[in-house]
Amino acid sequence: MKKSWTYKKAGVDRDAAKSFHDIAIRKIRSISNALNLNVLGIEEGRFTNYVQLGDYKLTLHADGVGTKVLVAQLMNRYWEVGWDAVAMNVNDLVAGGAKPLGIVDYIALEKSDKEILEGLLDGIEKACIESKTALIGGETAIMPDVIKGIRPGKGFDVSVAALGIVLWNVQKGSYGDVIIGFRSNGIHSNGLSLARKILLSKFDVNDPAPYDSSVTIGEELLRPTRIYVKICVKLWEKNLVKNFAHITGGAFLKIRRILETNSGVEINVPDPPDIFKLIITKGNVPWDETYKTFNMGIGMVAITTKDLAEEVIRLCKKMGYEADIIGKVDKEPGIRINVPGIGMVRIQC
Amino acid sequence: MKKSWTYKKAGVDRDAAKSFHDIAIRKIRSISNALNLNVLGIEEGRFTNYVQLGDYKLTLHADGVGTKVLVAQLMNRYWEVGWDAVAMNVNDLVAGGAKPLGIVDYIALEKSDKEILEGLLDGIEKACIESKTALIGGETAIMPDVIKGIRPGKGFDVSVAALGIVLWNVQKGSYGDVIIGFRSNGIHSNGLSLARKILLSKFDVNDPAPYDSSVTIGEELLRPTRIYVKICVKLWEKNLVKNFAHITGGAFLKIRRILETNSGVEINVPDPPDIFKLIITKGNVPWDETYKTFNMGIGMVAITTKDLAEEVIRLCKKMGYEADIIGKVDKEPGIRINVPGIGMVRIQC
Repeated sequence: MKKSWTYKKAGVDRDAAKSFHDIAIRKIRSISNALNLNVLGIEEGRFTNYVQLGDYKLTLHADGVGTKVLVAQLMNRYWEVGWDAVAMNVNDLVAGGAKPLGIVDYIALEKSDKEILEGLLDGIEKACIESKTALIGGETAIMPDVIKGIRPGKGFDVSVAALGIVLWNVQKGSYGDVIIGFRSNGIHSNGLSLARKILLSKFDVNDPAPYDSSVTIGEELLRPTRIYVKICVKLWEKNLVKNFAHITGGAFLKIRRILETNSGVEINVPDPPDIFKLIITKGNVPWDETYKTFNMGIGMVAITTKDLAEEVIRLCKKMGYEADIIGKVDKEPGIRINVPGIGMVRIQC
Repeated sequence: MKKSWTYKKAGVDRDAAKSFHDIAIRKIRSISNALNLNVLGIEEGRFTNYVQLGDYKLTLHADGVGTKVLVAQLMNRYWEVGWDAVAMNVNDLVAGGAKPLGIVDYIALEKSDKEILEGLLDGIEKACIESKTALIGGETAIMPDVIKGIRPGKGFDVSVAALGIVLWNVQKGSYGDVIIGFRSNGIHSNGLSLARKILLSKFDVNDPAPYDSSVTIGEELLRPTRIYVKICVKLWEKNLVKNFAHITGGAFLKIRRILETNSGVEINVPDPPDIFKLIITKGNVPWDETYKTFNMGIGMVAITTKDLAEEVIRLCKKMGYEADIIGKVDKEPGIRINVPGIGMVRIQC
């Protein structure tokens, strides 16, 4: 029997992540209570917490790029993961109704390596400019006893924390609303542990992709995450959307968070991009697992009312983002994915 | 000949750190220029950059706890390094004239380990409450191929990013001003690579300290960093100080940053606390190296005018911080340390 790969078999346990999240939320609450702050954002279904400063609501977000750092080492190319560390944060902020203002980076290195540091900072620079976000500062730590890598001496980890100002009110999607999917730009920074374990057991990073000899497997895995800040800010400003879900950890499961209880959605996904088809075929990954792990071609999802959908799509096209209606909110709870050529796949935790 | 330990021999290269810092500063400038921001704080000699939001000047800071994480693993005690990740950030913010508002943590783990996560978050909670700083959110990443440790499966790294509002103007110390040293609470989170390599080659973490059988070597190394936020905020608010230097990376060299060019100071340090004496003796560490690496009993330094010094010290005592005058700014450039029983030691980059 052919081995069937899942995210858990690749070393990522969604249940553990959920339990860790719950522990952190309890701490956030207890600190807020102790300090007499009453600004928890979690009830609103977006960032965990805020601080109020005069009339401003400020939030912080932190994220890394996971094991995409290992692909960068194998390719000896670093700007893409620097970019991604910013991208993951600013996309998350803007999805929740906050405009990113500034970031700090934290880079931990196995050895003092100028090439890695400069590469990461090149990517951070590009992504900051793309998302109109200032670089405020950063920290570099060289810790040979803490950091390791897939190539000797080339180990590193990169994460970013971002400051955002909450400007727009998120709303939950309800019956009749429309789900719009924005195309992704490859695998982004999620599911890399699974993708890497499957593909790099069959291919070398320098092998051409079987579906396109002009790109290598490594380039496909390393492709920088699309940054959606410009289009999301525009849609918020024009009051054309109710909410967004950034399709990262948990992938299409994240759409549940932006729907009212007792509603659900059937999503007509596009034919998966070739890189995902290759992963699925080579890894024999179950269909429900793929839509809980990968963006599968959709990097950001917007929810809006039926009458505004065409305007949203028109604006996306104008600004250079491909977007389509991929579903309507109905009264059947849960996320059902209508996979081309396969049929309906229900995903759940 | 007895081996003489230095920070560089312990794996930490100050020159590399300086070169990395310069690369980051160039990027910060180029991003600010590209985005037409003109808010660099570096010329003022404190944080690297700001964002301006209405009348508010906001800054972000990032820091980790370095290889203190390895001591935590050996001791199987984690709250102290969670605390320290917050402490390093909030102390730095307040030293530069900013009040900490909120933090996010980033925890990278070798394996899914609830004990480590809960320990770290307990410490983060305590330190947030002590410094009146909200916990806004955080990220936990489990990456067995990126993180390693000193005990199998117990590898982790913890860093924090903190948001501060710049409320007070720093000034450089000039001729006649007074340097006040605030006592530290042990080794804090700096110089651990050197301290650990020296002490743990001679002792087990569970061995009693030779100078005090009621504490172990591990407890001494793990002692949580004193948080100076309350006293520094009070001194800023009462306009009693010109500037602070948080004695962390670079240790007493950091005092140069808060002095005008062409001035210097002779510092009458207290007799080093026992833990530092033990490190120096066992590692045969040169005296100038110790004052560039460790806090040597002084965790924060304030600079003020001669007429305000007594009031500063009175307020410190009232609020439970030990503080003394340790030097006066003179016209001889450089930092000279008057080490008890040793004599004058000049430290430089």
